[in-house]
Amino acid sequence: MAPTIETVAIIGTGVVGRSWARVFSRAGCRTRLYDGDPAQVERALAWLQECAVAEAAEGDSESVAAAMALVSGHSALAEAVAGAGYVQESSPERLPLKQPLFAALERAAAPAAILASSTSALDMTAIANGLSTAARCVVAHPVNPPHVIPAVEIVPGQLTDPAIVERTAALMRSVGQTPVVMNFYLNGFLLNRMQAALWQEAIHLVESGAADVEAVDAVIRDGLGLRWALMGPFGVGDTNADGGVREYFERYGPTLRGIMDELGHIPALDAAQIERLGQSTDAMNGARSRPERLAWRDRLIRRIIGLKGEERL
Amino acid sequence: MAPTIETVAIIGTGVVGRSWARVFSRAGCRTRLYDGDPAQVERALAWLQECAVAEAAEGDSESVAAAMALVSGHSALAEAVAGAGYVQESSPERLPLKQPLFAALERAAAPAAILASSTSALDMTAIANGLSTAARCVVAHPVNPPHVIPAVEIVPGQLTDPAIVERTAALMRSVGQTPVVMNFYLNGFLLNRMQAALWQEAIHLVESGAADVEAVDAVIRDGLGLRWALMGPFGVGDTNADGGVREYFERYGPTLRGIMDELGHIPALDAAQIERLGQSTDAMNGARSRPERLAWRDRLIRRIIGLKGEERL
Repeated sequence: MAPTIETVAIIGTGVVGRSWARVFSRAGCRTRLYDGDPAQVERALAWLQECAVAEAAEGDSESVAAAMALVSGHSALAEAVAGAGYVQESSPERLPLKQPLFAALERAAAPAAILASSTSALDMTAIANGLSTAARCVVAHPVNPPHVIPAVEIVPGQLTDPAIVERTAALMRSVGQTPVVMNFYLNGFLLNRMQAALWQEAIHLVESGAADVEAVDAVIRDGLGLRWALMGPFGVGDTNADGGVREYFERYGPTLRGIMDELGHIPALDAAQIERLGQSTDAMNGARSRPERLAWRDRLIRRIIGLKGEERL
Repeated sequence: MAPTIETVAIIGTGVVGRSWARVFSRAGCRTRLYDGDPAQVERALAWLQECAVAEAAEGDSESVAAAMALVSGHSALAEAVAGAGYVQESSPERLPLKQPLFAALERAAAPAAILASSTSALDMTAIANGLSTAARCVVAHPVNPPHVIPAVEIVPGQLTDPAIVERTAALMRSVGQTPVVMNFYLNGFLLNRMQAALWQEAIHLVESGAADVEAVDAVIRDGLGLRWALMGPFGVGDTNADGGVREYFERYGPTLRGIMDELGHIPALDAAQIERLGQSTDAMNGARSRPERLAWRDRLIRRIIGLKGEERL
């Protein structure tokens, strides 16, 4: 599938921005990189080259040279966004920093360009407050790293044009991501709200003494997570009862509600608790280094996505 | 690996019991089936044959005949448990039913046999209340279906001998499952507490109007669930920050706590809500039948487990 927008600009080229650059260039977009720190752009370009080579070695068919030929680094914001139909901003998560950046993008970008932010926490209504381009501003929040994990949360601000939401979703689909559209902003969007809900109980279970980190993680990775890699909770519930999700809720609803009544222990996350959880996590990890575990995780995620692509539901 | 216990009895041969029978017979245990309804045993035997053939067709190397030769159906409880070193009970989830059943198992089973229940909700302290064999009684709660999903929660009652917990875990490892040991009973154990935590927020997100079932499920299956098939929350947190889980909590702790303050909406799960969620789930599912979706899910789970076995961390 050809990208629905030909040229994109990546503003902020740290870990998130460079991964976005891989998503777009791999899919065939002309991809223009800018960062306030020019050395960061150089590092991102080197990383993109490595990443293209590594994916090619894993059997990705596209040519490394072709993808890299689409990428360019720029030392001026205006130069990077010139001609871009879509701008993906990935600067640090601070409103006083993103507001003037979006004001600068409004001045520099083409009149019809979509101005998207990777923010995982801020409301576009606040970022674009007072801008005449607010209708073209939208959140496109990736799951890190987006060149590995497809889901992208698309969250409009109060002034965002619904057509911009639709065009952003279409672009995401066309570059191989899975757009997930929210109807309005909520703190944490969908993903981090559900992640926080799981974290809350996971931490409680360890801190209550009921089980260690290894046990809590094993229940997810060798149990619930195997289903959740294929179906969300509604899909799982629907296949866990012969009569579907209605029968599932009728049968298990009282049990679920009984458990829910016991949830809600908000962890302190103070230094002492963090250190206890850190030690229990160290015990689980054993000798394998963090970069090794991360590389394994992302490699296997790509293989799971490959399986799902091979054998579609 | 050879099973650490040679002969097992499956008491109750419905969907859960028959899947346990597959786990044990596939691993080489003599597997003796009993159900209060003899027709249920016949159905389980027929299912086991189909299941062995299907797994062999997917490339499982073991012989169908060899696995089936280890399986026998019995019309008397005492006959089924005679000579069994391990009994896996999978009857309906009602305490007044399980208590007399465990009393009968106490009378019929060998003096050293482990008496395990598949219960997902009951406390072994209550099931084995008053039994002289309470030290040998333990919960071994599978994730359905256990012949596909490896995690098994092992939960002692107050009188359970720690050596029985250890021997049950060793048996589970030896038949290819992943035992997860709890230190004491909590309502919902680990798995259903974390599942309920995710359900609670998933339902809230849909009911709040922020997103539909399709979006909530997509964030899990194309986002969080891809990581959770490989690592639990602590493993993910530890790989999501260069400095590991301590840095993760230091950096994201305030954000997580801010979200946690907004969680805790307990759904009504009344008829009207169930119907709304059912309709939204139907819209997601489209034309594919439930058996088709379930078969796809379980087939892909086996392939993901295959990937993890091929390329271990």
